[in-house]
Amino acid sequence: MNLKNSSHDFSGFDLNSYISKKNILINDELNKIISSSQNSNLLTKAMSYSLLSGGKRIRPVLCIAASEAVGGNEYDVLPAACALEMIHTYSLIHDDLPAMDNDTLRRGKPTCHVAFNESTAILAGDALLTLAFQILSSVHINNGAAKWLKVIHVVSLAAGYRGMIEGQMRDMASENSHISLKELEDMHSLKTGVLIEASVESGAILGNGNSEQIEQLKIYAKNIGLAFQITDDLLNVKGDPAITGKAAGSDKTRNKNTYPALLGVTGSENHAKKLITDALHAIETFDNKSDSLRALALYIIERKR
Amino acid sequence: MNLKNSSHDFSGFDLNSYISKKNILINDELNKIISSSQNSNLLTKAMSYSLLSGGKRIRPVLCIAASEAVGGNEYDVLPAACALEMIHTYSLIHDDLPAMDNDTLRRGKPTCHVAFNESTAILAGDALLTLAFQILSSVHINNGAAKWLKVIHVVSLAAGYRGMIEGQMRDMASENSHISLKELEDMHSLKTGVLIEASVESGAILGNGNSEQIEQLKIYAKNIGLAFQITDDLLNVKGDPAITGKAAGSDKTRNKNTYPALLGVTGSENHAKKLITDALHAIETFDNKSDSLRALALYIIERKR
Repeated sequence: MNLKNSSHDFSGFDLNSYISKKNILINDELNKIISSSQNSNLLTKAMSYSLLSGGKRIRPVLCIAASEAVGGNEYDVLPAACALEMIHTYSLIHDDLPAMDNDTLRRGKPTCHVAFNESTAILAGDALLTLAFQILSSVHINNGAAKWLKVIHVVSLAAGYRGMIEGQMRDMASENSHISLKELEDMHSLKTGVLIEASVESGAILGNGNSEQIEQLKIYAKNIGLAFQITDDLLNVKGDPAITGKAAGSDKTRNKNTYPALLGVTGSENHAKKLITDALHAIETFDNKSDSLRALALYIIERKR
Repeated sequence: MNLKNSSHDFSGFDLNSYISKKNILINDELNKIISSSQNSNLLTKAMSYSLLSGGKRIRPVLCIAASEAVGGNEYDVLPAACALEMIHTYSLIHDDLPAMDNDTLRRGKPTCHVAFNESTAILAGDALLTLAFQILSSVHINNGAAKWLKVIHVVSLAAGYRGMIEGQMRDMASENSHISLKELEDMHSLKTGVLIEASVESGAILGNGNSEQIEQLKIYAKNIGLAFQITDDLLNVKGDPAITGKAAGSDKTRNKNTYPALLGVTGSENHAKKLITDALHAIETFDNKSDSLRALALYIIERKR
C-alpha cells in the first residue's frame, strides 16, 4: 500500500519489535496485578483465564503509543493501558454469554462460560470491569490526581451506556435485520470505536498532551477505530481461519450486518484505506515520536488476524 | 430495646423524617442522571426500571450521614451516594439472573431479566456499574481530585473481586452445603458488609474527616453491616411477607445458610444487638451531628422490611 509515502516517512519503524516489547510490558503488569491476590480461587482463575489468553493488546499499545507521541513514557501510563485491556476482556466475556452472542470459542480457546460456568463468567466479567477502575484509581500521586480522574471519566463514558454497552445492544438488535451504512457505522463506533478513542485519549492525557494534540489524536483514533472494524469484517470473508481463529464466512452464516455485505469487498477495502489516510493526516504535524501510531494505523488494515 | 440509653441520648432524633428528606434528594438526583440521556432507549429503560424501583437507599443515606457526622454536607457527597446505589442495584440485577439466584421478583416487581430479557439485564447491570464510576469521576474540582480518586479506590475495592463479587461467588457455592458461623460471617462481610463500609468511608472522606474519625466510622460500619444481614435473615423467618415483599421462610426452603439456622432466632437477635452496641460504642465520642448514624444503627435491626 502506498500510504507510507505520506509527507512523513516512517518506513524504517520496526512495528513488530515495538508491539512485542510493549506486549511483554503489558502482560507482565497484568500478570502481576492478577496474581497479587493471595488466594487463587475460582473467580480469579476465571478472570486470569480470559485476561491472559493472548489477545492482541491493541488498546493498551495504542494508549502507550499515544502517550509517547506527546512526550510521555510507558511506565506512567501502564495502569491505564492495563485497565483498558481489562475492560475490553470483560466486554468479550459478557458478549460471548449464552444470552448474548452464545459463542463457545474465543482466541482458539473455549469461552469463559464454557471453561467455567455461566455465573462465574458473568461475575468474572463484572470483576474485571471493577478491577479496571481500581487500577485507574490506585496511582497515589497527589498532583496527578486530576489527570487520573479525567482518564476515569473518559474511560467510563466510552465503556458505558452511551458507548460500548449501547453498541452491544444495537449489535444484538440488528441481527437478522438490515441496517443502513450510517447505522452500521454508528453501531461499530459505539461498540469498538469509542473504547479505542478512549485508549488514545487516555494515553495523551497522561502523557501531558495539550488540548490541540489531544483533539488531533482523537480524530486519528476515530478513523483507525472504524478501519479496525472494517478489517475484522474483511478477515471474516477473506481471512485464513488458521490465523484468524474464527470460521471463515461465519458473519454471513449468522446474517450479521457487515461492511462487505453493504459495500462489497473492494468497496470496504477502499473505505478502510481512506480512513487510514485521514488518520495519518490528523497527526501529520506530529514528530517522529508518533511513528508508532503511524505504523499502527497501517497495521490495523494490513493485519492477518 | 434499651440501646438508646447509651452515654449519648439521641432519642429525640426523628429518623423517619431524616430518611424521607435524604431519599427525596437521592431519588431526584438519580432521576436527573438517568433521564439526562437524550434518547430513552431499551437500555436506559432497563437501567431506570431497576434503579428507580424504590429501594431503601440505605447505602446512600449512610454515605450522606457519615459525611455530615464529620462536618460535611449532603450536596458535596451526593454523586458518591448515587454511585453507591447504582452499584448496589447492578449487583441485584446480576444476582437475580437465571444463571445466578434465578429470582423472578424483587421489591414486589418482576426482576429486570423478567421485565426485559436476559441480555438486556446483563447489560443494564454492566451499564449501572460503569455509570457509577462515571459519576464518581464527574466532579471537576481540581483541588478535590485526590479525595474523589481515593473514594473511587475505596468503592472499587469493596465492589470488586476481593469484595462483593467474591461474596456472591461464595454465596452460590455454599447453597445446599453447610458452612460454619465464621464462613457465614466472612461471606456476608464480603457480599454486603464491605459496600456498606465503603459507603460510610466514602462519606467520611468527602466530608473531610480525619484519619481517626474515618477509622472509628469504619468500625461502626462493619458492625452495622453484619447486623443488617442478620436482620435480613430474621425477617425471612419472622417477617410479614406483605411488608418484606418476600415469601416467608424462603431461605429455609432454598436451604440457604442463615444466622437463625446456625444461632437460632433468639441467639441471632442477641448477636445483632451486640453488634449494634459495638457500632454505637465506636462513635461514642462523636457529637450530635452523628445522631443520624446512631438512629440508623438502631433502625438496621428494628426495621420491618
